[in-house]
Amino acid sequence: MSERPLILITNDDSYQAKGLAELVKMARRLGDVVVVAPAEGQSGKSHSVSLGSFVRLKTITEEPGYSVYAVTGTPVDCVKMAMSHILQRKPDLLISGINHGSNASVNAFYSGTMGAAKEGAFNNIPAVGLSLCNYDANADFSIVIKYSEPLIKKVLAQNKNPQLCLNINYPVVDESDFKGLKICRQAHGIWKEAFVENTNPYGDKIYWLTGSFVNFEPDATDTDEWALRNNYATVVPMNLDSTDFEDLQNIDYLL
Amino acid sequence: MSERPLILITNDDSYQAKGLAELVKMARRLGDVVVVAPAEGQSGKSHSVSLGSFVRLKTITEEPGYSVYAVTGTPVDCVKMAMSHILQRKPDLLISGINHGSNASVNAFYSGTMGAAKEGAFNNIPAVGLSLCNYDANADFSIVIKYSEPLIKKVLAQNKNPQLCLNINYPVVDESDFKGLKICRQAHGIWKEAFVENTNPYGDKIYWLTGSFVNFEPDATDTDEWALRNNYATVVPMNLDSTDFEDLQNIDYLL
Repeated sequence: MSERPLILITNDDSYQAKGLAELVKMARRLGDVVVVAPAEGQSGKSHSVSLGSFVRLKTITEEPGYSVYAVTGTPVDCVKMAMSHILQRKPDLLISGINHGSNASVNAFYSGTMGAAKEGAFNNIPAVGLSLCNYDANADFSIVIKYSEPLIKKVLAQNKNPQLCLNINYPVVDESDFKGLKICRQAHGIWKEAFVENTNPYGDKIYWLTGSFVNFEPDATDTDEWALRNNYATVVPMNLDSTDFEDLQNIDYLL
Repeated sequence: MSERPLILITNDDSYQAKGLAELVKMARRLGDVVVVAPAEGQSGKSHSVSLGSFVRLKTITEEPGYSVYAVTGTPVDCVKMAMSHILQRKPDLLISGINHGSNASVNAFYSGTMGAAKEGAFNNIPAVGLSLCNYDANADFSIVIKYSEPLIKKVLAQNKNPQLCLNINYPVVDESDFKGLKICRQAHGIWKEAFVENTNPYGDKIYWLTGSFVNFEPDATDTDEWALRNNYATVVPMNLDSTDFEDLQNIDYLL
């Protein structure tokens, strides 16, 4: 019996986001699809999990080859809920996105989209995070779909790395200027924060996180930030091991 | 003029946790101390930030050489708030902890304690996360203090790596059996989840995240999990780059 691939989809913008809807259309051409996505927006939730509190599960759609569930938790909660409670078998692929906004450079650490992708890869499910550098709720995802579909077919066909985890970001560009996909490393940079101080109606000071990205290596042509600025989509393979193996050889002097 | 080192302290168990209080006592022997810690417990918050919502800031203590502030946000929010709003100069060191519970192996990814440490290191503040594998609110942190203080003095004295980030975990063991600090790599493993289903008083099903840790390499003597089981405290240098450099050389076939 030949079985269609099983594709688990999640995101951090909620099950109602346009980016997810566009991704679902593509994924249903490639296999059976189960969406387990946050009930509400979960941007910036990184790899966080709901500890000490509970989640709820809402069935949105259940039909042969296509189901949608909403979880009142983080993107990583969604993957854990899918694996332990919803899915009958291990998915062949996890796709997280399409995120409304960049997950390039250091954003990969803050991103709920990429937290969910890494959680899949931890569990030996090859994972792809897709993001478009456009925060508009009605962004046009057509380039993302067109250029990601062939790559995702190849990820589904590969069987050498069950912990493959790709962070893929697309620039906002007309297709005539788009230069295609480029394998890159993560640019080094940080968000420089400026908390905006407001006063709430009760007279209390409150602080809203804002900031601007600082690229530490703007001229490094092998980085994702350089490639995005030059109209490439970027493919960064993500590391699932937190160890710094260079420092591991160099810190004896501290003991 | 000789200035005392400035040490920023945060954690994920809140500014009222015993582990933080014990750490503060040690840090005040080494320098001026500013605590910026979550107003409430933030376990499992990873590298998450409060986007689309606000934080509040409460001054708990302000005296020469020692201040304490509580932030209604995540551990990483606390570091950002300290850097952009509270501190007059860049700290010489960030210490996150002492966490009530293990941050070894894959816990490093879920951990708010280690998220805050990494955020410091991103900003060129050498950072140390301290954890004791004991979840008790009244745990005895004396071994952690005794064996960490000399190492932290050396971290303060080193000036070759401003992005040094150490994940240090202590076993629960009598001092007579304690074997000292060991430099390790992160063990590969995962949490196998089992959501416990309950029904709330309104008749809705709710799910609580529980699980058990599965070590993929229990016999690897160079890992943190092996060392902790064998009564060592573990020192894992953490990577601030999300790129998998091995995969970077191997994924051309996907394009």
